[in-house]
Amino acid sequence: MAVDLAYSAQVRDLVERTSAFIADEVLPIEIRFAGDITAAGGDELRRELNDKAKAAGVFAPHAPIEFGGLGLNMSDRAPVFEAAGASTFGPVALHIGAPDEGNIHMLAHIATAEQKQKYLAPLATGAVRSAFAMTEPSPGAGADPNALSTTAEKVDGGWKINGLKRFITGADGAAFFIIMARTVGQRGDRGGATMFLAPAETAGISVDRHIHTTDKSMIGGHCEVSFTDVFVPDEDVLGAPHEGYRYAQVRLGPARMTHVMRWMGSAVRAHRIAVDYVEQREGFGGRLADLGMMQQMIADNEIDLAAARALLVRACYELDLGEHASDSTSIAKTFGAEAFSRVADRAMQMCGGLGVSEDLPLARLAAELRPFRIYDGPSEVHRWAIAKRAVGRARKAREAQ
Amino acid sequence: MAVDLAYSAQVRDLVERTSAFIADEVLPIEIRFAGDITAAGGDELRRELNDKAKAAGVFAPHAPIEFGGLGLNMSDRAPVFEAAGASTFGPVALHIGAPDEGNIHMLAHIATAEQKQKYLAPLATGAVRSAFAMTEPSPGAGADPNALSTTAEKVDGGWKINGLKRFITGADGAAFFIIMARTVGQRGDRGGATMFLAPAETAGISVDRHIHTTDKSMIGGHCEVSFTDVFVPDEDVLGAPHEGYRYAQVRLGPARMTHVMRWMGSAVRAHRIAVDYVEQREGFGGRLADLGMMQQMIADNEIDLAAARALLVRACYELDLGEHASDSTSIAKTFGAEAFSRVADRAMQMCGGLGVSEDLPLARLAAELRPFRIYDGPSEVHRWAIAKRAVGRARKAREAQ
Amino acid sequence: MAVDLAYSAQVRDLVERTSAFIADEVLPIEIRFAGDITAAGGDELRRELNDKAKAAGVFAPHAPIEFGGLGLNMSDRAPVFEAAGASTFGPVALHIGAPDEGNIHMLAHIATAEQKQKYLAPLATGAVRSAFAMTEPSPGAGADPNALSTTAEKVDGGWKINGLKRFITGADGAAFFIIMARTVGQRGDRGGATMFLAPAETAGISVDRHIHTTDKSMIGGHCEVSFTDVFVPDEDVLGAPHEGYRYAQVRLGPARMTHVMRWMGSAVRAHRIAVDYVEQREGFGGRLADLGMMQQMIADNEIDLAAARALLVRACYELDLGEHASDSTSIAKTFGAEAFSRVADRAMQMCGGLGVSEDLPLARLAAELRPFRIYDGPSEVHRWAIAKRAVGRARKAREAQ
Amino acid sequence: MAVDLAYSAQVRDLVERTSAFIADEVLPIEIRFAGDITAAGGDELRRELNDKAKAAGVFAPHAPIEFGGLGLNMSDRAPVFEAAGASTFGPVALHIGAPDEGNIHMLAHIATAEQKQKYLAPLATGAVRSAFAMTEPSPGAGADPNALSTTAEKVDGGWKINGLKRFITGADGAAFFIIMARTVGQRGDRGGATMFLAPAETAGISVDRHIHTTDKSMIGGHCEVSFTDVFVPDEDVLGAPHEGYRYAQVRLGPARMTHVMRWMGSAVRAHRIAVDYVEQREGFGGRLADLGMMQQMIADNEIDLAAARALLVRACYELDLGEHASDSTSIAKTFGAEAFSRVADRAMQMCGGLGVSEDLPLARLAAELRPFRIYDGPSEVHRWAIAKRAVGRARKAREAQ
Repeated sequence: MAVDLAYSAQVRDLVERTSAFIADEVLPIEIRFAGDITAAGGDELRRELNDKAKAAGVFAPHAPIEFGGLGLNMSDRAPVFEAAGASTFGPVALHIGAPDEGNIHMLAHIATAEQKQKYLAPLATGAVRSAFAMTEPSPGAGADPNALSTTAEKVDGGWKINGLKRFITGADGAAFFIIMARTVGQRGDRGGATMFLAPAETAGISVDRHIHTTDKSMIGGHCEVSFTDVFVPDEDVLGAPHEGYRYAQVRLGPARMTHVMRWMGSAVRAHRIAVDYVEQREGFGGRLADLGMMQQMIADNEIDLAAARALLVRACYELDLGEHASDSTSIAKTFGAEAFSRVADRAMQMCGGLGVSEDLPLARLAAELRPFRIYDGPSEVHRWAIAKRAVGRARKAREAQ
Repeated sequence: MAVDLAYSAQVRDLVERTSAFIADEVLPIEIRFAGDITAAGGDELRRELNDKAKAAGVFAPHAPIEFGGLGLNMSDRAPVFEAAGASTFGPVALHIGAPDEGNIHMLAHIATAEQKQKYLAPLATGAVRSAFAMTEPSPGAGADPNALSTTAEKVDGGWKINGLKRFITGADGAAFFIIMARTVGQRGDRGGATMFLAPAETAGISVDRHIHTTDKSMIGGHCEVSFTDVFVPDEDVLGAPHEGYRYAQVRLGPARMTHVMRWMGSAVRAHRIAVDYVEQREGFGGRLADLGMMQQMIADNEIDLAAARALLVRACYELDLGEHASDSTSIAKTFGAEAFSRVADRAMQMCGGLGVSEDLPLARLAAELRPFRIYDGPSEVHRWAIAKRAVGRARKAREAQ
Repeated sequence: MAVDLAYSAQVRDLVERTSAFIADEVLPIEIRFAGDITAAGGDELRRELNDKAKAAGVFAPHAPIEFGGLGLNMSDRAPVFEAAGASTFGPVALHIGAPDEGNIHMLAHIATAEQKQKYLAPLATGAVRSAFAMTEPSPGAGADPNALSTTAEKVDGGWKINGLKRFITGADGAAFFIIMARTVGQRGDRGGATMFLAPAETAGISVDRHIHTTDKSMIGGHCEVSFTDVFVPDEDVLGAPHEGYRYAQVRLGPARMTHVMRWMGSAVRAHRIAVDYVEQREGFGGRLADLGMMQQMIADNEIDLAAARALLVRACYELDLGEHASDSTSIAKTFGAEAFSRVADRAMQMCGGLGVSEDLPLARLAAELRPFRIYDGPSEVHRWAIAKRAVGRARKAREAQ
Repeated sequence: MAVDLAYSAQVRDLVERTSAFIADEVLPIEIRFAGDITAAGGDELRRELNDKAKAAGVFAPHAPIEFGGLGLNMSDRAPVFEAAGASTFGPVALHIGAPDEGNIHMLAHIATAEQKQKYLAPLATGAVRSAFAMTEPSPGAGADPNALSTTAEKVDGGWKINGLKRFITGADGAAFFIIMARTVGQRGDRGGATMFLAPAETAGISVDRHIHTTDKSMIGGHCEVSFTDVFVPDEDVLGAPHEGYRYAQVRLGPARMTHVMRWMGSAVRAHRIAVDYVEQREGFGGRLADLGMMQQMIADNEIDLAAARALLVRACYELDLGEHASDSTSIAKTFGAEAFSRVADRAMQMCGGLGVSEDLPLARLAAELRPFRIYDGPSEVHRWAIAKRAVGRARKAREAQ
């Protein structure tokens, strides 16, 4: 007869240990790499950080227990991933970053036993990385999945894939790809996509270039990848043919929320740095933190973070019930992404000239957070979907009268 | 190991019955009174509506069970009060409006057994109404409680109260007052207030005038009340002397959240009317609901409402744990009040010229919602408090290092 | 070699006399009528105010000199109309309110000599009022003029008009109507409209009802008007047949800007009341006007008003050059309407509980200002037009390369 | 009797030639240096660009005619500087960047004939660069000038300066410094500052480090500079002693507006790139530019840019009249800086993933624009000043009654 928002002692302990690990082991490394434009420091560093995370008992807490993880559900991931997100290197260190975290989630749900052994097992332990090849350059499937242009043609014993993908996170260095390709219909048609698993060394797969973006924390970067007559045997079709978008939805809801969790950590860090700054500095006849306009920015940050967290809790609750949670994840993602940009922006403003300098990590955090309003569906696409569902419900209610 | 946001079947049933009661019994009456400037239709109507609510089994669900209520905790009140808030007459009908609902809450917590019999029992059943006389005109205790100017002087067998109060909701027609008066120190000093219970007919109590505001749903209006040599016997001191502000905090957190619940209902109603409108009308070559800028407004409303509800859930959870929840209630109140104004404003905009006309209730709902950004602590005061606490935590953390 | 933003001594003097007239003669009457829901006090009051304005030498400063006005161009109207707009009764008093002011403007430009004598002369002197019957209920021509449904059929010696109009400002009591009716094509087609002049007593014209809106300052209200087999002789066609929308553009640009001027006056008044309020009141240990969050609201109001005024100056300059100024008037209107609502809202917030009460006129002014975001083209329609033109310019530039 | 916003044919021609020069000569170089973190490419490139600008007849159009410039007043600078600002290297190329442009302005107004020959002449021709050493690290004179900590002590034949300055733009490579130092009173006192001229090679002047910020377009960077027993002879005192802040105001108003002009150019460029992008790309069943939410962003950009430009015109008009224009420059700066950030942010959003990538210069332009909300007085300080003046006017008006 009452809602319960308490985390178990085990989760609270994991959160604390994660925060300590980030502060002690990850932040010093992040700061050392601050000026580096290489995405997330490269794979050597990743392995080193992964080993440290394993030693600290905080590695891959979301991975299935049978593959060495803690099997945390979405609700319990939230505070842990947020703690990890305090450092832009935290998700890589814990192996909970995009796209691996979402791929682990999806493979655990729909891969065959053989696929799990071949692809999921080494991925879950961090032995390898992976990529999810869905989005395409215009006029292909960017924000609009119906525009899918990459095709998979049925051939003897398997499929032959051709197409160009863009913004494929982690592609450079990935051990394997999950490729979304059209197997029914044409560009502009709804649905008709199939997902395929393919080792990176498969003939015809080429990582052509990095697209350098303002965020730098995702290992393997955001790449353009071309697929030329790539052969995938039937046993490496992931899930049922032509059901790719349905599976993608299975992946997207949770992946969207783990994005919110991680980036929340970065936003919280930016806010704390700014509050610490104004708490210790004088100006205009007093402590900066006591000026009304500073208080307004501090309070607005607190409100934005609290609302984002509350929406995240709701969405995770629904996902853990097994619901699609399309609405609650779209809302939490849209609000969160916009709120985090606002928070980082106010944090910069609060710190004056230093706020936009490399003396503080705020501008760097803001640059990490900005793309989140575009990645994983731009705010506009989510708003369009949210509105369509609201209008659909209204029509249904009207027609039921 | 997972958060639980489910309401019991009993609560869900009560929500449904409340919604049906509002739609069937209350909305028709509200619409009939739409042009009337009398606050909430007057007491005769109130009694009629209360009787209907009792008959429907939805009356005073928050009141203590021993006094005929259902004893709902804060979490469970939320969806019920929201359902009632769909009509501006709903809270009066269910007897869950301000200030009675908060007074019931406070009396149940701190009144003596005798006080409960004398004041709480008739209040809980709706036999009478009450008022909470705290705020004063400038330079007295408006948003800043330290400025309390009304005084209570110790006299033989009781206290003698003098002062002027303003924005005393429900004062006209209230059977008794809870009066906050300074018993220690002077205007500008912190604390030092005591709460007193006094029947309205006590000599020296005068309801001087109504302050007509844009909201019309609170029965008894918002009044100026003067207290001239009002004698209150010792047994009608509420709680311990000089502890008035501590008790007020006990009252304010929950009262603030029930405001959010009720006004959420009005905002949801405004949003639904607007969505229904654009779902059924054509323009610019298609259905209005399919225009991108309409979808943006619809989605922003959905996001605002979802975030307000999620913050409310959090605050109620903390209050039900017995915590002060100063932060979470300030955040939920500030965000909610501002979000509801935005929602109502977008709803008007979506309906074009009719949106600002009496053909639709939107402008009326917007006028109801606007003051909430001021009542119960203006947004600015809450932001100030939120920021102060955040800065205090930062200083504490720094000093602990 | 330098821009010149100076008004002549004559105009500056007129502004001062207008402000004095408003303060001395109009505001006291407005305040007397504050609680009245009759639009602008009715025609008897209007005539009384017009006489006083004539006596003060501030009547109809925009009307053609030949008809007794001062013939002010748009640039010079701006500060005068703003001064008049300080009172919601000011535009009626000076006879510069909608729709008469725009109708005078249009008739002066396109009426025949006979039409001028018959319609413009009595209108310019304030002997009569007029209405402009263009907008229709859904699915007719509301914000989307292509949806025009009212038709005019050619008959012997004239035209026969049938249709329903809505939101016809000033219709109740108007001496004549300018009616926009479709003479070519069908609902949904672009263009094909003609404008007709018709005395109110023409058979078939019926003012069916007032649509009560939150604004109350426009005399004759906003009405629903039906036209049933209304005969208009050929000599009362206004301008060339089928060119109605082109003429409407001639009217709309200037009418849009005079709306901005008048409502600017109301917004400025709201702002001044609020600044006066916080300048004189104490709280939180000092003068309210010295609190940072108050200063932020004050500054945001100053910025909003300055920007609206600067955009207005630009648009009027273009209009006075004889340009269509579609872009600059859309921009000034959209920004202004939204800015004025923000200004009035902040003014209310600055004054706390009194801000939403009838003790101050702020809520009343906010209710006057709110519809301006919808009237004269909702913000969304202006944004759509602004964007279309910007994109058109981009395409043109691209194709020219 | 009408405002005049027309530029002369000469200015319009200069604007066109400037735009052509930027497109043909500067943008290709900017793009070549895009990944470079060196501020503005260094002095060798600067001289090369300056020579090209001289050849194109667009060099230093604001410099006094006697020193080889065109002597443009503020109003005429606006469109020229905006055209130059389209490239982040444009201001350096035309020698109209901060701080040289403001220093030229100030020296032209207050330097002695000898100082003009020694300092202004080589500066106006671009032979050398300069710096303006005013701001200091906390707790010195950052946003709050009263906190000035650097001191100048009177010694025989001149002054001895000691102090630490921060965010000194262009310091690295500057030929001379204008140093603001306290000559009366102590940190926290108002006024009492004097300005001194000192060649960079003067003993005791040390450029200690660059503060790397998100903007990269200002040659010589933003530096920390220490002054240790720096001797300045009496003849190099700039203006009268102790009047430094009064002169700084002379400099700050115009310098603030030229910032707005230049950054406007960058914002306009970002907007145009985004409009071009959505004008040419398909998605969601049509051209991106025809989606309602895209149109909203396009229109909001157009409105923001138009308002910023209109406020700039007003402020320049007042400055050209010889007024302080404190209010209008604060308003134009605050609105402009915030508007430009919004414009760049929307431009990124409109271009989706590419918007935050190096494939388009948008994120780079946004990073250039962000600091403007802090440089030259953070928005909060301007709002504080705007509010104080508004309240002061209200008090004065009240007291005059």
